[in-house]
Amino acid sequence: MREVAVIGCGMTQFGELWSLSLRDMFVKAALEAIDDAKIDHIDSLYVGAMTPGLFVGQEHIGALMADYLGMSPVPALRVESACCSGGMALRMGFFDIASGNSDIVLVGGVEKMTDGADVTYALASAADQDYEVYHGVTFPGLYAMIARAHMHTYGTTREQLAAVSVKNHHNGSLNPKAQFRAKITIDKVINATMVADPLTILDSSPVSDGAACAVLASMDVVKKLSVPAVKVIGTGAATDTLALDKRKDITVLNAVKQSAEAAYKMAGVKPADIGLAEVHDCFTIAEICVIEELGFVEKGKGGPFTEQGNTALEGKIPDNPSGGLKSKGHPVGATGIAQVVEVVEQLRGRADKRQVKNAKIGLTQNMGGSGASSVVHIFKI
Amino acid sequence: MREVAVIGCGMTQFGELWSLSLRDMFVKAALEAIDDAKIDHIDSLYVGAMTPGLFVGQEHIGALMADYLGMSPVPALRVESACCSGGMALRMGFFDIASGNSDIVLVGGVEKMTDGADVTYALASAADQDYEVYHGVTFPGLYAMIARAHMHTYGTTREQLAAVSVKNHHNGSLNPKAQFRAKITIDKVINATMVADPLTILDSSPVSDGAACAVLASMDVVKKLSVPAVKVIGTGAATDTLALDKRKDITVLNAVKQSAEAAYKMAGVKPADIGLAEVHDCFTIAEICVIEELGFVEKGKGGPFTEQGNTALEGKIPDNPSGGLKSKGHPVGATGIAQVVEVVEQLRGRADKRQVKNAKIGLTQNMGGSGASSVVHIFKI
Repeated sequence: MREVAVIGCGMTQFGELWSLSLRDMFVKAALEAIDDAKIDHIDSLYVGAMTPGLFVGQEHIGALMADYLGMSPVPALRVESACCSGGMALRMGFFDIASGNSDIVLVGGVEKMTDGADVTYALASAADQDYEVYHGVTFPGLYAMIARAHMHTYGTTREQLAAVSVKNHHNGSLNPKAQFRAKITIDKVINATMVADPLTILDSSPVSDGAACAVLASMDVVKKLSVPAVKVIGTGAATDTLALDKRKDITVLNAVKQSAEAAYKMAGVKPADIGLAEVHDCFTIAEICVIEELGFVEKGKGGPFTEQGNTALEGKIPDNPSGGLKSKGHPVGATGIAQVVEVVEQLRGRADKRQVKNAKIGLTQNMGGSGASSVVHIFKI
Repeated sequence: MREVAVIGCGMTQFGELWSLSLRDMFVKAALEAIDDAKIDHIDSLYVGAMTPGLFVGQEHIGALMADYLGMSPVPALRVESACCSGGMALRMGFFDIASGNSDIVLVGGVEKMTDGADVTYALASAADQDYEVYHGVTFPGLYAMIARAHMHTYGTTREQLAAVSVKNHHNGSLNPKAQFRAKITIDKVINATMVADPLTILDSSPVSDGAACAVLASMDVVKKLSVPAVKVIGTGAATDTLALDKRKDITVLNAVKQSAEAAYKMAGVKPADIGLAEVHDCFTIAEICVIEELGFVEKGKGGPFTEQGNTALEGKIPDNPSGGLKSKGHPVGATGIAQVVEVVEQLRGRADKRQVKNAKIGLTQNMGGSGASSVVHIFKI
């Protein structure tokens, strides 16, 4: 298998981007990544997006983005795995280069969520239609059930959940591309509008527009270009049941655990080697479960671990230095690549006020639905 | 790059399958393919589907199908490139094995189109929303414009277009899994209900439900299993503008030409080496343009070439022995893999009454929209 590196990154502001269409956003992020990588062509394009069909009536966006980048006839396609579509697009670009087929691949993610669609219906298409959605459940409801189970089983407190959000808003306040840059407090989170008990609006990632891109290259290309390259040393993906009720223990995100184990194995590293991570905090409880499954902390201890500051910028293992989905925003298809942009910029020492010190190995974890799919990548400078 | 082979195939009947849901169909085709391949596990799953979100409100179908096959936590994702989602799923499975990451990969395609959705709206999401769909154009309209341009430029006749449909219905009459098994005549095609002048309903592929799957394996696995294996010796993909009006000449399907050239180059074969092909006849004019771009006949001569019987079962280069999209049916995401099923069964000599004689090399060509994306694979027994 050939080695693969990230040689350029780009992303739009995340937020309600009224002046930019789906294609505008993608092209903006792609051109930024291409400029950053200092390349003049690509061999292939992979676009992650969850449901541009339901959001804006446009499918076939692999070819569309190649077209609007002026890059036809370059091979292009879209990858979908709900909210981890972006991370899976990276995985496809990785295999394309690893196999020897391509030398330079553009991978990206995009979603336009604020353009009038029924967002709750569109997002619910990531859950099991027959066994969940038809019966009225929504994603805040599913994650609220996970939160209640975690509190019941492990004694996780309401304040510990809120600590995830407070930490991520603090980080996001240092990120010019974040949707929400206001610092918040534990009290504010707990007393915000209730969405699905115990989760309030400040436990929940927002509805966002945005795009993010990364340029991948083989090591032959890296040597020729002499740009700062960050190696992709591990990729892992896994799945679980779509419906929560089919799982033995809903506090366990088995797809996250399995995808992390596969990535650690390929990379030849352990959780303790990870210097920083971007993880999928679609709701505060998600970050707590995920850091447990990634092995950053013992199962059930994610709450106190977060409350004690271990996942803060200066902590033992900084999680979501970008502000995460909660503060940076969550245009679903773009999220997995935005995580990569953050980790690569951190490893290259270009994260400005939110720079994590001395990190040499970073990890991204991106998941779909209530954890029915997960993809983990490990990067090394 | 490691070599990859197809070691098993399965597909459902194509048609209006009222008793089978999206997941039922996929599982049925997948189990048939797994039985055929005589394997007891897979390493990864790729599902092609165009827009299950718009058709039945369900995205995240990579993980869903892994779940319903009882195969979680196997890595799984969905691939989308409009009507060539299936062919692109095969391409992803190919890279996965070629890179050395997986040894056995299940690739499949599925679409449930007859379950109450606005099919014309859903299919139009493959065209350019901003420059085509918003202004009222539909796919029959786009292909009718291509047909008129081809007739004007090359003298292609109405009868020659109809000859594609007559040939494909003849082949489909020999295929137990085809949606329409009635033989038709040139007169019937020309005098059928007009859809978009000059194309009638009998120039047009139908709205269908169905699924198709194939099992891919590395040569190490092939040697151990001793099942009849068909090598994938070439893969090529390419794109073009989504909107027809952006092309210099709308009779030219550049993505088809470029994807074929890439596949021929990788396979080290020429058009004259191809013993049979399954091509994307969503409308009769599409097959004529495609066989020209594939190099089976000179540009502009596809009409007379078809009329003279060169693409018939006993012709110089049999096209669509399965009945093609026109007669076999066109559940969009499934089509690309159904083409693979036919070519593999033909090369293994298991195509019964529609068996093409002495074919050693077969080709599949699958495209999205009005040719904005295309993927070609070449197979050898």
